[in-house]
Amino acid sequence: MSKEVKAYGAKDSKADLEPMSIKRRDILKDDVEIDITYCGVCHSDIHSVHNDWGNAVYPMIPGHEIIGRVVSVGNDVSNFKEGQLVGVGCMVDSCQTCASCKDDLEQFCENGTTMTYGSKDKHMDDHTHGGYTTSIVVNKEFVLRIPENLEEKAVAPLLCAGITTFSPLNNWNVKKGDKVGVIGLGGLGHMGVKFADAMGAHVVMITTSPDKAEDAERLGADEVLISKDEDAMKEHAGSFDFILNTIPVGHKMDPYINLLKRDATMVLVGAVEPLDPFNGGGLIMGRKRIAGSLIGGIKETQEMLDFCGEHNIVSDVEMIDMKDINNAFERVMDSDVKYRFVIDMASLKN
Amino acid sequence: MSKEVKAYGAKDSKADLEPMSIKRRDILKDDVEIDITYCGVCHSDIHSVHNDWGNAVYPMIPGHEIIGRVVSVGNDVSNFKEGQLVGVGCMVDSCQTCASCKDDLEQFCENGTTMTYGSKDKHMDDHTHGGYTTSIVVNKEFVLRIPENLEEKAVAPLLCAGITTFSPLNNWNVKKGDKVGVIGLGGLGHMGVKFADAMGAHVVMITTSPDKAEDAERLGADEVLISKDEDAMKEHAGSFDFILNTIPVGHKMDPYINLLKRDATMVLVGAVEPLDPFNGGGLIMGRKRIAGSLIGGIKETQEMLDFCGEHNIVSDVEMIDMKDINNAFERVMDSDVKYRFVIDMASLKN
Repeated sequence: MSKEVKAYGAKDSKADLEPMSIKRRDILKDDVEIDITYCGVCHSDIHSVHNDWGNAVYPMIPGHEIIGRVVSVGNDVSNFKEGQLVGVGCMVDSCQTCASCKDDLEQFCENGTTMTYGSKDKHMDDHTHGGYTTSIVVNKEFVLRIPENLEEKAVAPLLCAGITTFSPLNNWNVKKGDKVGVIGLGGLGHMGVKFADAMGAHVVMITTSPDKAEDAERLGADEVLISKDEDAMKEHAGSFDFILNTIPVGHKMDPYINLLKRDATMVLVGAVEPLDPFNGGGLIMGRKRIAGSLIGGIKETQEMLDFCGEHNIVSDVEMIDMKDINNAFERVMDSDVKYRFVIDMASLKN
Repeated sequence: MSKEVKAYGAKDSKADLEPMSIKRRDILKDDVEIDITYCGVCHSDIHSVHNDWGNAVYPMIPGHEIIGRVVSVGNDVSNFKEGQLVGVGCMVDSCQTCASCKDDLEQFCENGTTMTYGSKDKHMDDHTHGGYTTSIVVNKEFVLRIPENLEEKAVAPLLCAGITTFSPLNNWNVKKGDKVGVIGLGGLGHMGVKFADAMGAHVVMITTSPDKAEDAERLGADEVLISKDEDAMKEHAGSFDFILNTIPVGHKMDPYINLLKRDATMVLVGAVEPLDPFNGGGLIMGRKRIAGSLIGGIKETQEMLDFCGEHNIVSDVEMIDMKDINNAFERVMDSDVKYRFVIDMASLKN
């Protein structure tokens, strides 16, 4: 009840990615079979391969920014049809019955979300495998519709980088006229700028690098605030309605907390590691808030994609062939990509 | 245009408090003259006297949990009358025109709140002086009505410890059936337990000290969670709708963040200093929130006092004479008070 498919994966945490073949399940009645055309390269793919979070299983096939075309559907699937452009993000299953799932927040499934790769597979004696492959079978509830007006290859990163930044802006009700800061101009930050701009906010890119100013403005930022410029930071103190913090590592938070208005929120989406000590008084004086946000549920991911269709938003991508993935990983670690690598999966098929 | 009154204050940050006399302004048209009967001893009085926050001015007369009776009122004051029981908290003036003041949040006045002691006095060439004295004159907008059914001396701490804990519970909509944690059983924590209990919450006192369990339950806690008991902490993981964190110093936050439900908030009211590094992932996984809260506005302080009148809530107090203040300071620093010292101001008058 399975098929051998070509993939690229890691044998262990020290190994480069290399060609391998994996077993892909045959479709069940609620499944959609997808021919993968593109897959984005997320920084978390690298953390996972390197087992930075201690929960890796091998062989590992990364990839959770998957775009493709429907090849076939199970008997109980009526909302997808052959040839349709679809996407798969970070999740491929959840219990669908717990309070979080009922609240359309499958990423917090209380019985354990099945992540796109590295989770126990519910249907095979294996763990799940991600999108660095040619074909995937996914339960219909976790398949997203992609607006056909968007450039196919540039849609891939929306499935993780897109929803990760859209969800907090949406959830905290960012609206026209709000002054919104986006900290960090990388894969996440560049999407945050595009979304906040499309929502009508006055967008300020907050970065350590003056050389990113021009690009930030091209992406939709109204202003650029260089966080090392103490005078500029003082000028903007207490003025932000919302800050989206995409910094992927531990960092000093006091300077950014100081930028928030009374009752305003800074949401962390990148730093899953220990943050530098910060002053409790910074939150107390002004009743400010720090919160976290993790990708988004399937319903909100579809909303995000529909929003992208309306506003013609895609990611800025650099295309690579599958065989160049190890070099791409190096470049992601060096922040040397504008702003997301996408694998052209035709390069694996041929 | 002023009167000499007896007081107790500090000459400098190293000095014990000692008897001194201060000038108290005569009443202006919007003022209320109050004969002080009781004043609570807040931990922040000690921080202020010791100049721990670097903004102290001397001679300093501390005290911002003031209870007394109206002696006289200015020509434009109609809502207070002679003999009425009234209170004054942490603030005695603000601009009344900025966005924060218009939102009834004078504690965040954008033109600078006039704190009860240590702020520039708007009407005299002096800084303001607090409640360790016999008489005070305060603008009517900053005078609170005290329900007459409450025990007068035990009301004093409501003016700071009360509003500091009531405001976050109120602002984050704690309601019947919510599971609410209160971390730390001191002056703030004991009020937090009483309020959360009166709001109908299932209250869990979270403390390092098993010997506080009995008292916590007497105050209204339904359960006591010993934070050093790792098994108990695991059992309560992900179960709290709201946590009120009254710890007054830097501390590890990860164990408490771990107690919160998805989308739940922990509010800091005590720690104005650097907090230990905590893991960003703790907020991201579960979309949790940390926020700060600072006392409360005058309108909300009156609501709190009215709530106390309805629910017959006062502070647990230990009475002292004015001359015993230095010993009381020592005991507060040793956490040796259940749960608030209140100065009987008759002891200074005679």
